[in-house]
Amino acid sequence: MQGKGIIIIIKGEGEIGGSGHQQQQQQRWLNRTTSLNNNAKATMATVLAMAMAMLLLFYSSSTSTRITTPSTTGTADEALSISDADADADAVINLDHGDPTMFEPFWKNAGDKATVIIPGWHTMSYFSDTSNLCWFLEPDFANQVRRLHRIVGNAVTHAHHIIVGVGSTQLIHALLFALSATDTRHPVSVVSAAPFYSMYPGITDFLKSGLFRWAGDATSFKVNGSSSFIEIVCSPNNPDGTLRRAVLSTEAGKLVHDLAYYWPQYTPMRSPADEDIMLFTVSKATGHAGTRIGWALVRDAGIASRMVKFIEMNSIGVSKDSQVRAARILQVISDGYELPDPDSTTSFFHFSRHLLADRWQRLRRAVEESGRFSLPQFSSEFCEFTKEHTETYPAFAWLRCDDESIEDCEGFFKSMKVLTRSGRHFGAGSEYIRISMLDRACNFDLFVERIASLGLG
Amino acid sequence: MQGKGIIIIIKGEGEIGGSGHQQQQQQRWLNRTTSLNNNAKATMATVLAMAMAMLLLFYSSSTSTRITTPSTTGTADEALSISDADADADAVINLDHGDPTMFEPFWKNAGDKATVIIPGWHTMSYFSDTSNLCWFLEPDFANQVRRLHRIVGNAVTHAHHIIVGVGSTQLIHALLFALSATDTRHPVSVVSAAPFYSMYPGITDFLKSGLFRWAGDATSFKVNGSSSFIEIVCSPNNPDGTLRRAVLSTEAGKLVHDLAYYWPQYTPMRSPADEDIMLFTVSKATGHAGTRIGWALVRDAGIASRMVKFIEMNSIGVSKDSQVRAARILQVISDGYELPDPDSTTSFFHFSRHLLADRWQRLRRAVEESGRFSLPQFSSEFCEFTKEHTETYPAFAWLRCDDESIEDCEGFFKSMKVLTRSGRHFGAGSEYIRISMLDRACNFDLFVERIASLGLG
Repeated sequence: MQGKGIIIIIKGEGEIGGSGHQQQQQQRWLNRTTSLNNNAKATMATVLAMAMAMLLLFYSSSTSTRITTPSTTGTADEALSISDADADADAVINLDHGDPTMFEPFWKNAGDKATVIIPGWHTMSYFSDTSNLCWFLEPDFANQVRRLHRIVGNAVTHAHHIIVGVGSTQLIHALLFALSATDTRHPVSVVSAAPFYSMYPGITDFLKSGLFRWAGDATSFKVNGSSSFIEIVCSPNNPDGTLRRAVLSTEAGKLVHDLAYYWPQYTPMRSPADEDIMLFTVSKATGHAGTRIGWALVRDAGIASRMVKFIEMNSIGVSKDSQVRAARILQVISDGYELPDPDSTTSFFHFSRHLLADRWQRLRRAVEESGRFSLPQFSSEFCEFTKEHTETYPAFAWLRCDDESIEDCEGFFKSMKVLTRSGRHFGAGSEYIRISMLDRACNFDLFVERIASLGLG
Repeated sequence: MQGKGIIIIIKGEGEIGGSGHQQQQQQRWLNRTTSLNNNAKATMATVLAMAMAMLLLFYSSSTSTRITTPSTTGTADEALSISDADADADAVINLDHGDPTMFEPFWKNAGDKATVIIPGWHTMSYFSDTSNLCWFLEPDFANQVRRLHRIVGNAVTHAHHIIVGVGSTQLIHALLFALSATDTRHPVSVVSAAPFYSMYPGITDFLKSGLFRWAGDATSFKVNGSSSFIEIVCSPNNPDGTLRRAVLSTEAGKLVHDLAYYWPQYTPMRSPADEDIMLFTVSKATGHAGTRIGWALVRDAGIASRMVKFIEMNSIGVSKDSQVRAARILQVISDGYELPDPDSTTSFFHFSRHLLADRWQRLRRAVEESGRFSLPQFSSEFCEFTKEHTETYPAFAWLRCDDESIEDCEGFFKSMKVLTRSGRHFGAGSEYIRISMLDRACNFDLFVERIASLGLG
C-alpha cells in the first residue's frame, strides 16, 4: 500500500461498446427483464444483459479519458479527455491492491436509494447503543448485517455478537489482542496456511507485541502441547481463491475465519458458515473500501468484550457516518432481492458475478494465448443462493509463471508496466504473482491486452 | 469507556426558559443581530443572546423528557416524555467521558448547510490522493483544516504535513510507532506531566509493545543520556485545563503536542502553535465525536511517512465518509466567520464559548455554595481570535475535594449518582475527580443542582 503518485493513461471504453440508440434499447429491455427478476433465480442471460447495459450507461459519456488511478471518485465523466494509443502503451496499471472500484457502475446506477444524507447534528456522540456489548455499533447497521447474511445464506448470525471495526484489518488486530493471554510469558503463535494474505505477518509483528508473534505457514507449524496458537483461515483464500478449512485442529488453538470473499459474486454459496469467529468487510462485499467498515461475528461474549476493549484503546470506536452509509448500502442490496424495483437494476451479486465471470473468461483466454502462464482451475458447484451451478471467480488472479526463463514474475510484469504483488509476500515463490481482478474496467482491459500481446511475439 | 446500559431520567428544559412568543421575539432579534456579526469581534452580549435563543429553539419541543444517555442522536424531540421530580432524583448522570453533545444545538440550528449527501458510488476506492504522502487524506478535508487554522490562528500549517486518523487516539498510536526506533533493544519511554490524560498509559502499554513503554509522570522522569523518550504535552491540559510546555527538554527526547483543546471556546488564542508535531480532533473542536476524525500536523516527512505506515497496517486508511463530513463541518464554521449568513447564527466558537462560560459560572457558584470543593482558577487573557479579554473555560472540571471526611471523591459523587473519573487515573490523588463540562444541558443542569444541594444540608 505505497502512496506513490502514478499517472495512468487509459482508454475510457466500457467492457462492451454500443451506440446511444443501442443503449436506450438495452436499457428498456433491462427495465422490463429486471421486473421479472424478483428472486435469486435470475437466469445467467438476464443478468449478463443487465451488466452490459449498466456498463454502457456508466461509460456512455466519454470514449477516451485520462485519469489518475487509484483515485477516490475518478470516473469516466470526471476525467480529462487526452489519451491516445501511445498513452495507453505507456500507462502503468496498478493491480497490486485489491481496490474494488469495479463495482462503481452498479452503485452509480442505483441512484438516490443508495445515497445517504447526514444532517450536521446527527451521530455526534461517541456512543451508539449503550445497552449493547459493542457500544459503538449502530443498531441499524447491525440489523442490515444480519438481514443480508440471512438473505445470502453465507453465515449464521443468531448466536453471534456483531463487532464493527475500521475495516476487517482493525478487527484482526482486535482478535489477536482478544485471543492472546495477558498473563503468559510467551507470545501466542499466529499462523495461516501458505499462500496466506500478505498482510497477516505484518499486522501481527509490526508493533513487536509481547502478546502474539507471527509463526508462518500453518502447514509446517509444530503444535506444542503447552503453547497456544491462533490459526487464521481465509476462505475463499486471498490470494488463490481456494476454499479453506483449518489445517491445525487441537484444543490448544483458536481459529479466526476471515470470510471477506465468501459472497456470491466470488464463489458458490454452499451453506451458511457457522464458525466461532468470522470476519467480513464491505470493501469486498459491496466495493466500498473507502468507507472502512468491517464486522466480526463472534460467538463468545468474553472474546467479543476484549475486541471492544481493543477498539476503545485503538480508536475509541468506529465512524458512525461510515456505519450509517454501510447500513444503507447493505439495505439497497437486500432490498434488491426482497423488494425489487421494476424501474432499475437491483441484483448486486448477479451483476457483480457476471462482470467477474466475463473478466475471468477474458483473462483465461489471454493467458492461454500467451503460452507462458497458468491460473488456478475451479470446478463448478451448485450455489444455494442463485440456485444455479456456477464457477468460482476470485477477486484475485493467482498467476503462475511457467516460463523458466522468467525468474521473477513480479519483475516481468513490472517491465510491462503492470504492478502486481509477488508470491514471496504470501509465503510462496517468486514464480507467482497476485493480480487484482477488481479494478476499473479501463485498467483491466489494458492489462488483458498486454498479456494477450505476449502470445503474438 | 465501558458500554454499560445506563438509563437516565432527565428534565428536558433548556438552560434558559421562555414562552413560544418570547422565543419568536428572540429569534427575530437574533437574526438581526447576527447579520452585524460579520467578523470575530462580536460582543459578549450579542453572542450570549444567540446562545440563549438557540437553546430555546433546541428545547422548545418538550419540557420534560426521558432519555438514555449517552446515546447517538438522543435529542429532546426524539425522547419519551415521562419524567418527574422523583425520576430526576434517581437519574444517574454520566460525566465520566468527555462526550461533546453540548454542541448539538448549534448544529441543529445550522440546518442544511451542515448536511452531507454521499451518493452510493462516491469514495469507494481505498485511495484519496496518490500524489500525497498521506494517500488516504481527502484533499477537501485537508484544505478545510488549513483554512480553519488560518482563521482561528491556533496553529501554523504551511510547513506541516497533515495526517488524518481515526480520532486523535489512532494518531497517538501512530506517533508512538513513528517516533520509536525499530533497531534498539530497549523500548522508548513515554511520559507526560501529571495530571496527564488517563488514556496515555493504556494506549502505550496495552499491547506490550517492544517499541515503547509508559514511564509515568514527566516531572519525575530521569533523562538518561543513552536512552530516548517521548514526552506528550497536552495543552490546554486534559484533565485540568492548564496551558502546558514541555517539562523535559533535551536532544534525546521527542515531543508530541496534543492540542485537542486549543480552540477559542476553551481558552484564549495567544498565538499560532508552531510545534513539530501537533494533534487535533473534531471531537473537541466541533463536537463530532462519532465521526472519529483527528489530524496531526507533522513537520518531518520521515515521521509523517511512518505514521502513514502505521495507519496502513492498523486500518488501511481512514473513513472517507467521515472525512467528507468533517470537511463540511469545518467549512460551516469557517464560512460562519468569513461568509456570515444574515439569516442564521454562524459564530460557532462564540456560541460555544458563551455556553461554556455560563456553565462554568453556575458550577463555580454551586461549588462555592457547597463549601466542600475547589476548582482551578484561571486569569483572564487577551484572545487574538475574538480580540477580547476572556477567561479559560476548560472542557473538564478538575475538582478537588477539600472536605477531609471524604476519602474518595469519585466514590462520593457516585453516591450522588454522578459518574466522574478519579484523579488516580490521571497520575493524581483520589481527592481529585475529572468532570465533563460538555454533556447535554439537561444532564449538566441536574449535576449542578445536586452539587448546590450539598450546601443546603
